[in-house]
Amino acid sequence: MELLDKLNWRYAAKAMNGEKVAEDKIDRILEAARLAPTSSGLQPFEIFVIKNQKIKEQIKPIAWNQSVITDCSHLLVFAAWDTYTEDRINFMFDLTNDIRGFKNEGWENYRQMLLNSYPQQDAEVNFNHAAKQAYIAFSQAIAAAAFEGVDATPLEGFDPEAVDQILGLREKGLRSAVLLPLGYRKTEDDWLVNLVKVRKSTEDLVTVID
Amino acid sequence: MELLDKLNWRYAAKAMNGEKVAEDKIDRILEAARLAPTSSGLQPFEIFVIKNQKIKEQIKPIAWNQSVITDCSHLLVFAAWDTYTEDRINFMFDLTNDIRGFKNEGWENYRQMLLNSYPQQDAEVNFNHAAKQAYIAFSQAIAAAAFEGVDATPLEGFDPEAVDQILGLREKGLRSAVLLPLGYRKTEDDWLVNLVKVRKSTEDLVTVID
Repeated sequence: MELLDKLNWRYAAKAMNGEKVAEDKIDRILEAARLAPTSSGLQPFEIFVIKNQKIKEQIKPIAWNQSVITDCSHLLVFAAWDTYTEDRINFMFDLTNDIRGFKNEGWENYRQMLLNSYPQQDAEVNFNHAAKQAYIAFSQAIAAAAFEGVDATPLEGFDPEAVDQILGLREKGLRSAVLLPLGYRKTEDDWLVNLVKVRKSTEDLVTVID
Repeated sequence: MELLDKLNWRYAAKAMNGEKVAEDKIDRILEAARLAPTSSGLQPFEIFVIKNQKIKEQIKPIAWNQSVITDCSHLLVFAAWDTYTEDRINFMFDLTNDIRGFKNEGWENYRQMLLNSYPQQDAEVNFNHAAKQAYIAFSQAIAAAAFEGVDATPLEGFDPEAVDQILGLREKGLRSAVLLPLGYRKTEDDWLVNLVKVRKSTEDLVTVID
């Protein structure tokens, strides 16, 4: 399967060479993230695409000074909703009705069920749930980057509150969840590029219940 | 890009027809999950592949009686580590040294850093972190299923504690995170199959910072 070839090709580049990624490739990577399934279809996150070098330089020191932050072409920031609100839930249900052109009783009952549960839950619980949905999209962006021959470095090693502040995310009701620098590997400076990919064996990962 | 075609083809089947998925397809879907990147490469989860109909029937009532639970071919359960322990961290670092055939000081320092942080953290924080890694693999399994022409229904609507009990997960230091029934759509019973896919517009999802 072509997907497996691409997933075997990819790795988390530890050094990038500053080369720019073409915008049509970035668009397709973002489109994969946009198409990702999410719980109740709410897509409870936004994606910030940082091309501005000064902002990358502000983020680098609060991300363990990892060089890929500044040497990447586009830095994606996946920011999840800080909580689920009535407005946010209604936005997606209204959008669904608009796009499909009809209202459906079952769907409206489902809206009510969500309105009666999510907004009443603890914001931290909701943020954690929203962040997981962001990870589904993040993962599809990683796969899409591999299809484009673009290196992508999944990156959790950063101070989320500092990134929130730099990008003004809290004021938008968002919190940074995970980063994805996109660019091209700098082979001569990357300690990881020539090392074998390590994964648990299928036997250690998978249990079949017959 | 072929990936986008596949992601546009897929949807969360709401009815399946009981037809079996060939084992080589299942193997490739699991291989995509195995290849998924995870934080520090720890792969903090396991995947249970339920083919046993009686166990599917036990799970159905604690998953809102959704028919795909019993009418799917293989039910994947992604179960995350309940916490990070020294043994679990050491297992992956030792495996890496074994596979790569050498020890590296930087890598050993990184092992120590993880040993000095994760196991001391609250188990719930660790489980949430591990569950996010499981979602990365879950997402790649969804994409892989689409490549195989296999329907997959991402499913969070279940009682995790009940699933943990049915599968004996807690005794293994695991907690169920998310389900993925794999099978084939039953078009005539599926209210969703002919409806337009709804996603937020790129403008609502993505902000470019130039």
